[in-house]
Amino acid sequence: MGQNTRQVGLQSVLIDTPVFIRASASIVGKKEGEGPLGEFFDKTGTDDLFGAKTWEDAESSLQKEAVTLAMEKAGLSAKEIRYLLAGDLLGQSIATSFGLMQFDIPLFGLYGACSTCGESLSLGSMLLAGGFADHVVCVTSSHFASAEKEFRFPLGYGSQRPMAASWTVTGSGAFVLSTDSGKRNAPRITGITTGKIVDYGIKDTFNMGCAMAPAAADLIRQHLQDFNREATDYDKIITGDLGTVGKTALMDLLKEYQIDIAPVHMDCGIEMFDSEKQGTDAGGSGCGCCAATLSAYILRKLEKGDWKRVLFIPTGALLSKTSFNEGKAVPGIAHGVVIEA
Amino acid sequence: MGQNTRQVGLQSVLIDTPVFIRASASIVGKKEGEGPLGEFFDKTGTDDLFGAKTWEDAESSLQKEAVTLAMEKAGLSAKEIRYLLAGDLLGQSIATSFGLMQFDIPLFGLYGACSTCGESLSLGSMLLAGGFADHVVCVTSSHFASAEKEFRFPLGYGSQRPMAASWTVTGSGAFVLSTDSGKRNAPRITGITTGKIVDYGIKDTFNMGCAMAPAAADLIRQHLQDFNREATDYDKIITGDLGTVGKTALMDLLKEYQIDIAPVHMDCGIEMFDSEKQGTDAGGSGCGCCAATLSAYILRKLEKGDWKRVLFIPTGALLSKTSFNEGKAVPGIAHGVVIEA
Repeated sequence: MGQNTRQVGLQSVLIDTPVFIRASASIVGKKEGEGPLGEFFDKTGTDDLFGAKTWEDAESSLQKEAVTLAMEKAGLSAKEIRYLLAGDLLGQSIATSFGLMQFDIPLFGLYGACSTCGESLSLGSMLLAGGFADHVVCVTSSHFASAEKEFRFPLGYGSQRPMAASWTVTGSGAFVLSTDSGKRNAPRITGITTGKIVDYGIKDTFNMGCAMAPAAADLIRQHLQDFNREATDYDKIITGDLGTVGKTALMDLLKEYQIDIAPVHMDCGIEMFDSEKQGTDAGGSGCGCCAATLSAYILRKLEKGDWKRVLFIPTGALLSKTSFNEGKAVPGIAHGVVIEA
Repeated sequence: MGQNTRQVGLQSVLIDTPVFIRASASIVGKKEGEGPLGEFFDKTGTDDLFGAKTWEDAESSLQKEAVTLAMEKAGLSAKEIRYLLAGDLLGQSIATSFGLMQFDIPLFGLYGACSTCGESLSLGSMLLAGGFADHVVCVTSSHFASAEKEFRFPLGYGSQRPMAASWTVTGSGAFVLSTDSGKRNAPRITGITTGKIVDYGIKDTFNMGCAMAPAAADLIRQHLQDFNREATDYDKIITGDLGTVGKTALMDLLKEYQIDIAPVHMDCGIEMFDSEKQGTDAGGSGCGCCAATLSAYILRKLEKGDWKRVLFIPTGALLSKTSFNEGKAVPGIAHGVVIEA
């Protein structure tokens, strides 16, 4: 282990000691369960309330259940987990606070909008590689109904949605990162590229794909440069929740850098729903979208050996009701994590 | 450096390689400038708008100015800073997003309510000690007017305040953590204790001191146990923003553990204002309260050699407008950082 060799290029880090995704769990809502990835999720709800009385509590339940199941799969108890690294989209991250309280584990609360899953895996990996913990749990969530209330209007208002809008995923993904794989085929986190805030002045808060695409493009360009790799060094380069509109923007932006990721690109937001049948417009979004997809689908492909190395890039749109009402644009941020079989 | 010796007790970490607070900067509003610590702050505003048109933009300006000045004092440019670790109290952390964008530095957004300053210093220290960065900047802020709007009512409503209420500090503190001290007397971060969410069921959202005191008590008890130290091993044990009401609760709670910190206790919220003259009720609070006090006053005492070792414990109340309106209690969290001369 060489401390000085850990910093790679301008924005990246090499995880040069074993950091495994020892186990993970996913839980989603009814609509997500009816989508193309439906069969892969660990748990699917029937009414999106998950036994709670409010949408916010329902989202807390998502985190609670995902963490419980992930620890169970890892064969670890809460006492063995050194840190929780967690976040959600709600003001003051209340889904996290009220969902994780009962575990009685030291908590680092994070906010990176829908990029938070990547942020949590990045910080978690560094805490393990630095010797500060042996096991941590990273968890993020979103809920369609709590997010609509938080960012737009309560569902009861029956607001209309433009075609470029994405559909916030009701779901959560939890990941037990560990220095000890615990099983034969646990994927490893081997590198991290941390994103900057990128603002192209997009003011349409329904078109979050376009707001986040510049951050994703910047992250991909910097990542490939830092690690001196080509897009084809990855079996998949997977963005979080750009959706169909944001994907087009991403491809256009990358062309300016002479980078073509089309042959290996996948977007969790596009995979999550059958947009035409399910009426989800540009695709899925939210902290839970890429987290649930990573757990249910991406890690499975790595564990089965179908993929050897992926670059996983959750993308976030940095806005609030207040910033929107005060006329601000929607900057984006993206966090990249290299996961290898 | 021994990886295995870094984890201390149940919730703590030893920072066993040099992590210095190389430089810091503080900026506060007019009222804070008129308080007992007024002479120590680097900058004091005249109208609390800091040249902006909205309170939220004013808070962004606080972060921007604090970071700019801290980097200047450290003799470092933005290009030399590997990560920003930052947060604020507003929904979706917009003061941070719009305040830090221009620096073009990879960002980890954090949310721990008013404990975020401690969270940022904790994660920042571990990133440096782990060899993942040589210089990082930690910054947090709060603004009286943006916080009142976010958590209670816009100032224009002229709402009344109960005596147990605290007064959100308009201010920000930024800290350049570095593996290279850059000067003779830079204080060092030598240990960290990370807090859990602690919920005593307090439902009075004006009495945040009492909501946070249990988390602070739990943190202090665990910290002293993990490091096998006594309260008097510290020149000061400094809580973030419990205020006068929370302080009383803290002392009562610690009595149950047979711990007496009275001789060395200080609370940034109590120090910030002359409550009787300035009408600030229980004292100052907010992400900016302990951050500005750490930069302006606490680090100065360490640099002058008046204090040799302090335990700095920012405290946070985990609530939102929504959680309050849905009848939730206000759990607390606290993050402890050991700083030595």
